[in-house]
Amino acid sequence: MTLTASETSTGTKIVLGRNQYGKAEVRLVKITRDTARHQIEDLNITSQLHGDFTAAHTEGDNAAVVATDTQKNTVYAFARDGVGTLEGFLTRLGDHFTTEFEWVTGGRWAGQQFFWDRIEDHDHAFSANKSEIRTAILEIADGQNNIVAGIEGLTVLKSTGSEFHGFPRDRYTTLKETTDRILATDVTARWRYNTDAVAGGGIRFDDVYASVRRLLLGAFADTHSLALQQTMFKMGEAVLEAHPEIDEIRMSLPNNHHFLVDLTPFGQDNPNEVFFAADRPYGLIEAAIKRDGVPDTHPIWENSSGFC
Amino acid sequence: MTLTASETSTGTKIVLGRNQYGKAEVRLVKITRDTARHQIEDLNITSQLHGDFTAAHTEGDNAAVVATDTQKNTVYAFARDGVGTLEGFLTRLGDHFTTEFEWVTGGRWAGQQFFWDRIEDHDHAFSANKSEIRTAILEIADGQNNIVAGIEGLTVLKSTGSEFHGFPRDRYTTLKETTDRILATDVTARWRYNTDAVAGGGIRFDDVYASVRRLLLGAFADTHSLALQQTMFKMGEAVLEAHPEIDEIRMSLPNNHHFLVDLTPFGQDNPNEVFFAADRPYGLIEAAIKRDGVPDTHPIWENSSGFC
Amino acid sequence: MTLTASETSTGTKIVLGRNQYGKAEVRLVKITRDTARHQIEDLNITSQLHGDFTAAHTEGDNAAVVATDTQKNTVYAFARDGVGTLEGFLTRLGDHFTTEFEWVTGGRWAGQQFFWDRIEDHDHAFSANKSEIRTAILEIADGQNNIVAGIEGLTVLKSTGSEFHGFPRDRYTTLKETTDRILATDVTARWRYNTDAVAGGGIRFDDVYASVRRLLLGAFADTHSLALQQTMFKMGEAVLEAHPEIDEIRMSLPNNHHFLVDLTPFGQDNPNEVFFAADRPYGLIEAAIKRDGVPDTHPIWENSSGFC
Amino acid sequence: MTLTASETSTGTKIVLGRNQYGKAEVRLVKITRDTARHQIEDLNITSQLHGDFTAAHTEGDNAAVVATDTQKNTVYAFARDGVGTLEGFLTRLGDHFTTEFEWVTGGRWAGQQFFWDRIEDHDHAFSANKSEIRTAILEIADGQNNIVAGIEGLTVLKSTGSEFHGFPRDRYTTLKETTDRILATDVTARWRYNTDAVAGGGIRFDDVYASVRRLLLGAFADTHSLALQQTMFKMGEAVLEAHPEIDEIRMSLPNNHHFLVDLTPFGQDNPNEVFFAADRPYGLIEAAIKRDGVPDTHPIWENSSGFC
Repeated sequence: MTLTASETSTGTKIVLGRNQYGKAEVRLVKITRDTARHQIEDLNITSQLHGDFTAAHTEGDNAAVVATDTQKNTVYAFARDGVGTLEGFLTRLGDHFTTEFEWVTGGRWAGQQFFWDRIEDHDHAFSANKSEIRTAILEIADGQNNIVAGIEGLTVLKSTGSEFHGFPRDRYTTLKETTDRILATDVTARWRYNTDAVAGGGIRFDDVYASVRRLLLGAFADTHSLALQQTMFKMGEAVLEAHPEIDEIRMSLPNNHHFLVDLTPFGQDNPNEVFFAADRPYGLIEAAIKRDGVPDTHPIWENSSGFC
Repeated sequence: MTLTASETSTGTKIVLGRNQYGKAEVRLVKITRDTARHQIEDLNITSQLHGDFTAAHTEGDNAAVVATDTQKNTVYAFARDGVGTLEGFLTRLGDHFTTEFEWVTGGRWAGQQFFWDRIEDHDHAFSANKSEIRTAILEIADGQNNIVAGIEGLTVLKSTGSEFHGFPRDRYTTLKETTDRILATDVTARWRYNTDAVAGGGIRFDDVYASVRRLLLGAFADTHSLALQQTMFKMGEAVLEAHPEIDEIRMSLPNNHHFLVDLTPFGQDNPNEVFFAADRPYGLIEAAIKRDGVPDTHPIWENSSGFC
Repeated sequence: MTLTASETSTGTKIVLGRNQYGKAEVRLVKITRDTARHQIEDLNITSQLHGDFTAAHTEGDNAAVVATDTQKNTVYAFARDGVGTLEGFLTRLGDHFTTEFEWVTGGRWAGQQFFWDRIEDHDHAFSANKSEIRTAILEIADGQNNIVAGIEGLTVLKSTGSEFHGFPRDRYTTLKETTDRILATDVTARWRYNTDAVAGGGIRFDDVYASVRRLLLGAFADTHSLALQQTMFKMGEAVLEAHPEIDEIRMSLPNNHHFLVDLTPFGQDNPNEVFFAADRPYGLIEAAIKRDGVPDTHPIWENSSGFC
Repeated sequence: MTLTASETSTGTKIVLGRNQYGKAEVRLVKITRDTARHQIEDLNITSQLHGDFTAAHTEGDNAAVVATDTQKNTVYAFARDGVGTLEGFLTRLGDHFTTEFEWVTGGRWAGQQFFWDRIEDHDHAFSANKSEIRTAILEIADGQNNIVAGIEGLTVLKSTGSEFHGFPRDRYTTLKETTDRILATDVTARWRYNTDAVAGGGIRFDDVYASVRRLLLGAFADTHSLALQQTMFKMGEAVLEAHPEIDEIRMSLPNNHHFLVDLTPFGQDNPNEVFFAADRPYGLIEAAIKRDGVPDTHPIWENSSGFC
């Protein structure tokens, strides 16, 4: 990358570092109406391009700047031919931009997919009653397509089968140990597919999503928990054991605290029945679970949740 | 109500008008664990008292001010004995406060209930994956209990079977007529029970909720729509026809616009397949559907969505 | 209003009650650039029409339904001639619709106005760094224009000068009395102008807004508070004393609890210095403060915060 | 890090990768009341620890898990001795945890600070009327303290002095070129301090914040913009030129589109006066501006906006 620069007061040049730009949150609803039984796909797509855009930054020269409006138009135009899997749609977009414009060397395409159910098996009436969102990120860099898929907004709770004790105590520790607490979290999970598996082209992304979702729920439900960390590891392990095409899975799990209400002032016991569900603060437990040998970091993670 | 007042610059007294106070958004999770198969109830409760609280306002004299903290405590204490229906729980609270404190002549108790499903029929593991919220408001006034129940956050869409034409055109009208559009809305509905039916005590609130929800969805799906107003009226009519214990139902339905994307610049047609789902502005269609003879207004509506 | 109806199972007719429709949240930015020193007005406008729209509801007949898109267009077209005060702009809209379409007998026009400051007195660069929003509602009914103006999102806090004691104690009361607590709230206030004063046309709405805002802040700051109710009454009283054109003011004030953290386990005192700012629950204190003789209710309040 | 593992179906071990845990969003309000003129500090603190927590994940062994509740307590206890700068407070926390617990080898401490103004110079009454939030992140790794400071929620707009043309056109390009458009964005900026400068201890974080804020606003206002990229680069350049203690600054700038409304159907012109402020989609322009030689990435960025 040839960098135009300016002199600083201290003599060092000021240059453009990593950068990307594009159109965020293109809200696309695609109805497939080949037959009387319609299909609906409801997406929120973000397209960002990588390449040498130095002149735009330093000179205001837009000769290389594929307009974000053009990126938006392309999303809609491509949808006309059908969406398919979220990951497949992002791949069509990414391949297009990196092929069509020679100076676009890569980019980041991200999507959210919202779920609709048919209203009593109706042909063209649907209800969207899910907080759960399916996500995917495609990053193209150095000629490789990397894909991270994910799930957001899946709230789960266990009303027993969760303990927490044996933690270290210092002068600031007041928490009591417990052998029976509510364990509740909102699952945000993202799993990174093996790059070769992505290149091979045989991944059935919809099936994997359904399977990962089921495995996450199952491991959450079935693990007798001594720590949310342990439950999280079991959830990730279940996914990796079943899906060789996934190299690692990362989770960010808030520990949604449910505090037992002290009812003794009112002459009542409270055998783990009445809880105050707190908003903030909350514990926050995060980890990558991965196959041995997978590097601790991967470029796609740096930009998975925001640029800065 | 004896009103203390002060003199204004123009000679009129300034007095306290309608007022209420209490504790809002008491987050209560109740686990029933009599057997290994737990039940979960997840609620957000607001308690507000009516009565003569003039001295607190004009003198800072709190002798009549049941602390909002006490109201919160009461919610948790009452939950220890079980929640039952949302409406029934609010009624227990309302009856308590208006009985326990002689100067509390009425009040407003409101609740939201969040839905949980069992994870694969597990005994104590649940997932909350619904945007839909069940609501209820109890207002006690003049010795009567009035109840409004409701549903929020139920998003629905029809991909065909919706027309809009025949509207008047003036110099500011540019909208084209259409015989096939997407119709989408987020249903907020509230239905007011007949006061005598409430007093009679036989209403099965959980069953009515399930039935109303089903009727709203069914009428939305099955009505060939010439206007969102028409669909809304059909939805309300279906509810009132099936439920003699309901006097009226009010709905507030945003018309979530889905604009057909013009793909002709790209050499493509767009036979109602590719849509831009807009955020704002949106149409907003609101009405009461009621039995003939029911008054146009009722005190509980004045305070259903906010005091001021 | 002639009501078309249908027969219910119990023999009563089902009819259309109160209703309104229109376009919500029309986001309008108006730049006045007559000179190099630009002015910016940033608004969010909602227009809703009242009248006999029965046929649309019961027959899907849209002959009377001024399209919501037309209402939106009108907002933008009218802005071309300048906005002026928020209340004045709503009045131009309301007068137009009730004049242009004979069957439109009234309506509700509401607006939010967002604040911008000049960046260092720049001619055409602005920053919007306010959480405070100015609001207004115009309701036209029975040939009269009623106006409620308001303020939202104004967060205030006193770090001392607030007590709370003398409240009744029952078996559910555990709250300790205090003579020094933090008092914090987010002010939502709405004041209703005298209808004759509105008709008279001489109200300087921008000046009144600035004055009310200053009076609310001043009374909050200067009142030694024995209850949030008392502070609220003082705030309202100050407004009514200074503004004879205002009949009443309503406020909804959350009591944003700041709990003193118990630092004794850590060998520290806490002389009202370190607080946990809680999210939920919160106290909620609401009242109308009005001139003696003003009725307890007014139709515009029924629809100030939502239809159902 | 010694990793416990399990065998996968394909023979590879599944191991724990990067991980962190702690307490998020500890809401702290600190009043300093040494004199009658109180000071207020309003913070939202997140503490996350790094180290070898493998046993908790794989065995549910919590011997190394400093409870998130303990981390919360520590935040409040430390506040008792005063907060000072946001960055300084995070540093006290980070140094404590990495010193007190030998197995805690690092961590991430993040904070938001909310702004309050005095109400008319009152001693103990304040108003919080800012959307702007000050942020900071401290990451301790390999014995080094790295600090990123930032600003969020600063909305700015130029009503002229912004052009956009000269961009490439392909079959999906429909955007018209313009020499006069509204340029509006919500500034999210984060700047990374030089590690040696942090270690040196002489950075006046409050002063730098005020200066960076002023420089960002000034460069936004004064740059005649040919692209938002260009404006962004000028903003970053101004910061780096003035602050040798800053190595790089990253910005994420949504291009908040203001579309000129076509008023010609209504017989009106629209000389850049009446705009529709759109919600979604929006352009998204992101870049790092840095001193020459500063690496393209730094570990603290990987975790600046979320773990996964």
